[in-house]
Amino acid sequence: MNVPHCWRGVAAVYLSAVHIIRSVRWSDDAEGVTIVDQRLLPERYVERDLRTLDEVADAIRTLSVRGAPAIGIAGAMGLVVSVLACRDSTRDAFLAAVRGAADRIRATRPTAVNLPRAIDRVVARAMSAAGSPADILAAMRREASSILAEDQAMCRAIGEHGASLFAPGARVLTHCNTGALATGGIGTALAAIYVAAERGLAPRVYVDETRPLLQGSRLTAWELSRAEIPVTVLVDGAAATLMASGALDLVIVGADRIAANGDVANKIGTYAVAVAARYHGIPFYVAAPTSTLDPATPDGAMIVVEQRPGDEVRRGFGTLTAPVDVDVYNPAFDVTPASLVTAIITDRGVVRPPYQF
Amino acid sequence: MNVPHCWRGVAAVYLSAVHIIRSVRWSDDAEGVTIVDQRLLPERYVERDLRTLDEVADAIRTLSVRGAPAIGIAGAMGLVVSVLACRDSTRDAFLAAVRGAADRIRATRPTAVNLPRAIDRVVARAMSAAGSPADILAAMRREASSILAEDQAMCRAIGEHGASLFAPGARVLTHCNTGALATGGIGTALAAIYVAAERGLAPRVYVDETRPLLQGSRLTAWELSRAEIPVTVLVDGAAATLMASGALDLVIVGADRIAANGDVANKIGTYAVAVAARYHGIPFYVAAPTSTLDPATPDGAMIVVEQRPGDEVRRGFGTLTAPVDVDVYNPAFDVTPASLVTAIITDRGVVRPPYQF
Repeated sequence: MNVPHCWRGVAAVYLSAVHIIRSVRWSDDAEGVTIVDQRLLPERYVERDLRTLDEVADAIRTLSVRGAPAIGIAGAMGLVVSVLACRDSTRDAFLAAVRGAADRIRATRPTAVNLPRAIDRVVARAMSAAGSPADILAAMRREASSILAEDQAMCRAIGEHGASLFAPGARVLTHCNTGALATGGIGTALAAIYVAAERGLAPRVYVDETRPLLQGSRLTAWELSRAEIPVTVLVDGAAATLMASGALDLVIVGADRIAANGDVANKIGTYAVAVAARYHGIPFYVAAPTSTLDPATPDGAMIVVEQRPGDEVRRGFGTLTAPVDVDVYNPAFDVTPASLVTAIITDRGVVRPPYQF
Repeated sequence: MNVPHCWRGVAAVYLSAVHIIRSVRWSDDAEGVTIVDQRLLPERYVERDLRTLDEVADAIRTLSVRGAPAIGIAGAMGLVVSVLACRDSTRDAFLAAVRGAADRIRATRPTAVNLPRAIDRVVARAMSAAGSPADILAAMRREASSILAEDQAMCRAIGEHGASLFAPGARVLTHCNTGALATGGIGTALAAIYVAAERGLAPRVYVDETRPLLQGSRLTAWELSRAEIPVTVLVDGAAATLMASGALDLVIVGADRIAANGDVANKIGTYAVAVAARYHGIPFYVAAPTSTLDPATPDGAMIVVEQRPGDEVRRGFGTLTAPVDVDVYNPAFDVTPASLVTAIITDRGVVRPPYQF
């Protein structure tokens, strides 16, 4: 890439159009929510229009939509389309339908925080709107669209700040999926990669397959390939060897939660990457929205690590790959201490240590 | 465990009988070679008697037998049983049959060094034996039995030396399969664990599943469970987190090749474990037979790392888990520098740095 030096870092100048998947959007006739069915990836790319409450609830419950931001957006937009059929009711009947649909969608994934938060916003907007069901629906649709737009803006901002850390031809390792498939926009850690590609910096991506659920090989490799960004998949155990070979310039990962001192909870395997990056002197960046910062949690030791079912490891590929009743250590995420984090990229900028959120 | 202190480290005193699988042995009637069919593990435990040249060659070619030492032993013993049918021939016809069978078995796995070495020993013994085909067969059988016995003694010696590094209740991490399933005896790294268990030291084992081929979860977890040694499986990316939690006392792994300076080539993922062990101050031991030492290779940089087919990662277990044509980085093994190796355990003793083989 012959990128004039004066162009680098100029956020508004894009050398290439990068075609990034949109995982949640209004359908063409605006009567449905169009999603990418993530259960079928990478084998098949299927978009589905969700047009009824059943379809919305099933899509979230069965993980056709995944990633906390994407789930929240699909829930909010899904709530709108699932009450379209009631638009000829009385105002009271319509609002009762909104509440009923909201309860049902909210219950599909009881632990994710983005879903109830997004649903509550749309319900509150409905309750405060004046006029007929048609007027209420219009207000609800604006609210859901706002949630989507805010997520897109947040992703874009993270991407712009993150891309400033990329040199031309940067070779970057990532872990899990923190991309367009997990958000309404262009992702978090992957947003930095997408914006770097848009700026003509030609990043080259390596992605850990990310056992046990393989979000790296199934989802990240797929969405980057689709955007025509060069990507190579490796088993998690090979990342340190790749670093030793001199093939990496930086690591960038997402975060589930960031404690006040900068300790980062993220998908299991992240900490191992951070330790190896430190050993090899490779910068280790974390990209996450400001909403991920948790000043109420002083440090990572206060974060309770959820243990997931052993069968994710024992029968992860549809085949029994371990003794049927063997004990399994399967934490859902791990905690990387702030001391291993070179910088944290949020929608508000790049933060360097010492961290104090 | 209440183990009297004076007993500890006394190799001849075993507190518990540990029932360790035997992966290759003569069949009860001595007319066949009995193997554990490793393709079916961990789902089913099936022993198979190999009684013809076709059965012997197929078992090795299709990986029913795996692990370089076990392949060599199965090949040597298999050569004997595959010429039993010719014992009524003339001496010349019998020796021609031996050579033909040897060529066919040798060709089943062209890259492993143990197989041709073991076959050549049995063929040389046949050629130098006097007398009838029955006499030659007896000599061949003694040679094959010697190869098995030597491997068993080597495993036992490694186990005795390795177990001396275990404190009571030691919590140990291992990687891949270096156990009874891979050798004619009780393994290499696992031999130390088995002997520690025999000595009543009650080791507790964690094993990386070992992507891409999952020898840790499929084989190591299975053989340790069968021997009633407590074992927990984890994804490779979780090992560093386990170390950070304080749940590990030592790491012990095998080796494919050890350079003159102590650099260790072993299954991909080993190096990441070594880096994490160093970061957490946990001893990292390598257990391997003296035959693995390669004084002709000055250091690890001289070891060529084989790249394996991408489909081992993309479709590991019959399911497509990555885009069908995505690029894959899939080295078969990695090189751990001697600087990360606390000690190397061979059949001749425990060697500490500086290494000079």
